[in-house]
Amino acid sequence: MDDSKGMLIVVSGFSGVGKGTVVQLVFESLPNLQFSISCTTRKPRSGEENGVNYFFMSEEEFEKKIAADEFVEYTKTFTNYYGTLKSEIDKPLARGVDVLLELNVVGAMNIKKMYPDSVTVFISPPSIGALKARLIGRGTESPESIERRLKEIENESKVIDKYDYCVTNNIARTCADEIVNIIRSEHLRVSRQNVNKIFISEE
Amino acid sequence: MDDSKGMLIVVSGFSGVGKGTVVQLVFESLPNLQFSISCTTRKPRSGEENGVNYFFMSEEEFEKKIAADEFVEYTKTFTNYYGTLKSEIDKPLARGVDVLLELNVVGAMNIKKMYPDSVTVFISPPSIGALKARLIGRGTESPESIERRLKEIENESKVIDKYDYCVTNNIARTCADEIVNIIRSEHLRVSRQNVNKIFISEE
Repeated sequence: MDDSKGMLIVVSGFSGVGKGTVVQLVFESLPNLQFSISCTTRKPRSGEENGVNYFFMSEEEFEKKIAADEFVEYTKTFTNYYGTLKSEIDKPLARGVDVLLELNVVGAMNIKKMYPDSVTVFISPPSIGALKARLIGRGTESPESIERRLKEIENESKVIDKYDYCVTNNIARTCADEIVNIIRSEHLRVSRQNVNKIFISEE
Repeated sequence: MDDSKGMLIVVSGFSGVGKGTVVQLVFESLPNLQFSISCTTRKPRSGEENGVNYFFMSEEEFEKKIAADEFVEYTKTFTNYYGTLKSEIDKPLARGVDVLLELNVVGAMNIKKMYPDSVTVFISPPSIGALKARLIGRGTESPESIERRLKEIENESKVIDKYDYCVTNNIARTCADEIVNIIRSEHLRVSRQNVNKIFISEE
């Protein structure tokens, strides 16, 4: 394999597990890592910005992009679309830049199928009880929405064993360091290196 | 898989690449890691101690252990035997202790076949020219022995792509940190964890 190609990292985790904070810390440690901004039709949460956290768009706009074959993968959960633009992945990878995607389990498994070399990481909570309390305490969602998310957690938990790695978010900094180490170690895999390079330019 | 089982790490590298120093630093960083002492019929080098670096023994003693089926693997290189005792691996692994083996490529591939979950790491030099100079400069070996080692390097280089990871020993401390990270990251693989544990003791 070509050393000069970037690596694709897919991060998932239950709602409320604190993915956002962890992923933020990962980016602070790895300046060469690029965040792939997903498209969604859901409403921005407080503090979320268009073109930073997501590309927020209407259902009509999203479906136009589907028709134009602009997505590498997309899913519809509940009433919202989520999708990853081809342009957000393939261009940086070809330039040798690592790309991190934050996706739900369906999206992650879709990406893994299309990019078998990608590295999938699931962020799990220290306990399910703590996660439920945090989700309810966030206070940003209706009781129905919380109910749906709890159901989603139950479903998602069944596919954790399909991921390459599972890290626990007990302390965000520690969890982020573990992901940083995973990314660095994966670059040292023989399958990602040209191991004959040490013999080139000799003799 | 059972979280409580230890992990087997196999480290190889060309003669003169500085494996000893790197491995020493890895052990300083991971107090729970145990070194599996190999048996050999070769003479101790200056500074090497019986029961620390190797179990040094006569050909007769070694062949007695072969007959008693005490080895998990053994190889004969040039005129010397090298072997790994079953007792040095299986007992610590069962206790949940990680075990590191330093082996040549034949031994490493034998172990990988018998312990498919083991993690194999090849330590490569920054360049082959530097390695040759270092090997000659060590001054511990006859010209014939050096000649054989150079031949061995050529042969070993053909199987690096069979290893899981390849790290470069440019600075020993950096190289050791990379191996430490590999060991830590491998423990986070889903295949090495009981990912359902977060749901146990709940509800």
